[in-house]
Amino acid sequence: MSIRIGILGYGNLGRGVECAIKHNPDLELKAVFTRRDPASVKILTETAKVYHVDEAVKMKEDIDVMILCGGSATDLPVQTPEYAKYFNVVDSFDTHAKIPEHFAAVDKAAKENGKTALISAGWDPGMFSLNRLYANAIMPEGKDYTFWGKGVSQGHSDAVRRIKGVIDARQYTIPVEKALEAVRNGENPELTTREKHTREVFVVAAEGADKAKIENEIKTMPNYFDEYDTTVHFITEEEMKKDHAGLPHGGFVIRTGKTGWNDEHNHVIEYSLKLDSNPEFTSSVIAAYARAVYRLNKEGQTGCKTVFDIAPAYLSAQSPEELRAHML
Amino acid sequence: MSIRIGILGYGNLGRGVECAIKHNPDLELKAVFTRRDPASVKILTETAKVYHVDEAVKMKEDIDVMILCGGSATDLPVQTPEYAKYFNVVDSFDTHAKIPEHFAAVDKAAKENGKTALISAGWDPGMFSLNRLYANAIMPEGKDYTFWGKGVSQGHSDAVRRIKGVIDARQYTIPVEKALEAVRNGENPELTTREKHTREVFVVAAEGADKAKIENEIKTMPNYFDEYDTTVHFITEEEMKKDHAGLPHGGFVIRTGKTGWNDEHNHVIEYSLKLDSNPEFTSSVIAAYARAVYRLNKEGQTGCKTVFDIAPAYLSAQSPEELRAHML
Repeated sequence: MSIRIGILGYGNLGRGVECAIKHNPDLELKAVFTRRDPASVKILTETAKVYHVDEAVKMKEDIDVMILCGGSATDLPVQTPEYAKYFNVVDSFDTHAKIPEHFAAVDKAAKENGKTALISAGWDPGMFSLNRLYANAIMPEGKDYTFWGKGVSQGHSDAVRRIKGVIDARQYTIPVEKALEAVRNGENPELTTREKHTREVFVVAAEGADKAKIENEIKTMPNYFDEYDTTVHFITEEEMKKDHAGLPHGGFVIRTGKTGWNDEHNHVIEYSLKLDSNPEFTSSVIAAYARAVYRLNKEGQTGCKTVFDIAPAYLSAQSPEELRAHML
Repeated sequence: MSIRIGILGYGNLGRGVECAIKHNPDLELKAVFTRRDPASVKILTETAKVYHVDEAVKMKEDIDVMILCGGSATDLPVQTPEYAKYFNVVDSFDTHAKIPEHFAAVDKAAKENGKTALISAGWDPGMFSLNRLYANAIMPEGKDYTFWGKGVSQGHSDAVRRIKGVIDARQYTIPVEKALEAVRNGENPELTTREKHTREVFVVAAEGADKAKIENEIKTMPNYFDEYDTTVHFITEEEMKKDHAGLPHGGFVIRTGKTGWNDEHNHVIEYSLKLDSNPEFTSSVIAAYARAVYRLNKEGQTGCKTVFDIAPAYLSAQSPEELRAHML
């Protein structure tokens, strides 16, 4: 029998989860829940239905795992603890600094109701976090580096779009190759923000807009751009559509460390991702963790979990015997 | 209170474990057990003692986790099931094809005696296996590639040493850069053995030995060299000591896969290691899993485990709260 999945929120991430379910035969999309008029939401899966979000709780017996695809700023801090009362849930909460309080709220709701929840699934937090943990456990003495990109930062793109005279914008975060090389060579550099990443912005400006002023506003924007070397390109709407429609991303997690009685040997552990679609890859991680959450709940392991708490075998559709024989 | 560790077998790996324990303040080396005369074995840790292996079982109350540092060919298939009767154990059994039967034997012994065992810790099997599993769970449709090196293969070095006229030899396995690049570019190449790795051999020949004959014997050796492009260099004993004393190794685990409703997006997940000392890195992985085994046994989780069965948080000396706050 398949694991019956619900998707709450049908944006880029929700659509990505729908695609990921298609790639996992043991998962079945049962329903999509939306705040919009359900009649206005067209989904890809013919066997699943669209409901208004107000109908969700009524369907708690029909859904094994509810995947919450809202945003971390305002949606998930409310939704995850709320829906963990009725469903096993997975979210991709990514406000790193607020994870402890989010965990506490979700853990309470899930435990009180015998449900299992997994927060902060994805790649950062998520796969990057796992690699930081494994590398730190193996080499307690060492240094961690995380680089992001090349990829589209939606937050930075949005910030540029709010500038007067900007019609559309796309911001790419790019790791500095020289810094990456120094890290890989075990030089243990101390890197400033500017030395780690550059930013490249593509802007469609309104007719007659002051391009020099826009460029200056971008480059001096506090927090977002002022600490970086930023390049700004003005392009047409057609070029934006043709060349910048995707949401690629990726990055590198590197730990360098020492072993030996006198720390005489150096080691480099590197994990990297090169992703054509950030939301679809994030969704693929979420789908694997939905399987794990379902299994944990069957075993009576309730409450809130993170990727740190889940034994890897729970993520795979293969049996422990198959995994040991073919993947170990 | 520290976790009290015993080391059984004091070769490169045993010494590596001793060094790893020094880097983990919550681990304490209690004793080293050897088949040699204990008086002849000098260890680095002043607070630990050396005993004959026959004394081990008598000390079962003094050791929380026994780390078995023997070889996979003949030592571990006997030792791990035997010592799992008396101790929580960790080994680095690396004969991939025999893992299922080794698992079964160790599982039986450990379960019957309320002990916890972890087999096949290290980097391959070990960290590479973990990365294969995670990447396969995230992208069920895709292709796996493992490259090894640049590094010293001890099995191949030994094989060359058995050739008549060879005094000493060191064999390096080297991944083919062009193949790596094709994989990273998402070309999904079908690669032959010859296309993935080359082999480079450094040989010290006996005086008057027939070098052309030695070179030919190496290059045509079945299983070891005949399917590879191999380069042979003759060097002096001094050069061998000066330039080839270390045991570096490493490699790459890459999975490429597709997401999207029509598989329209490509992704590359890559994990790589660059290691100055193969045995010391393997030992560092073992030390982290010794911590996990100790904790699992305290929780009553007995029997045989692999890296697939251990939630990552068990490996870290940090608390779950610290991990969530700082590493997620």
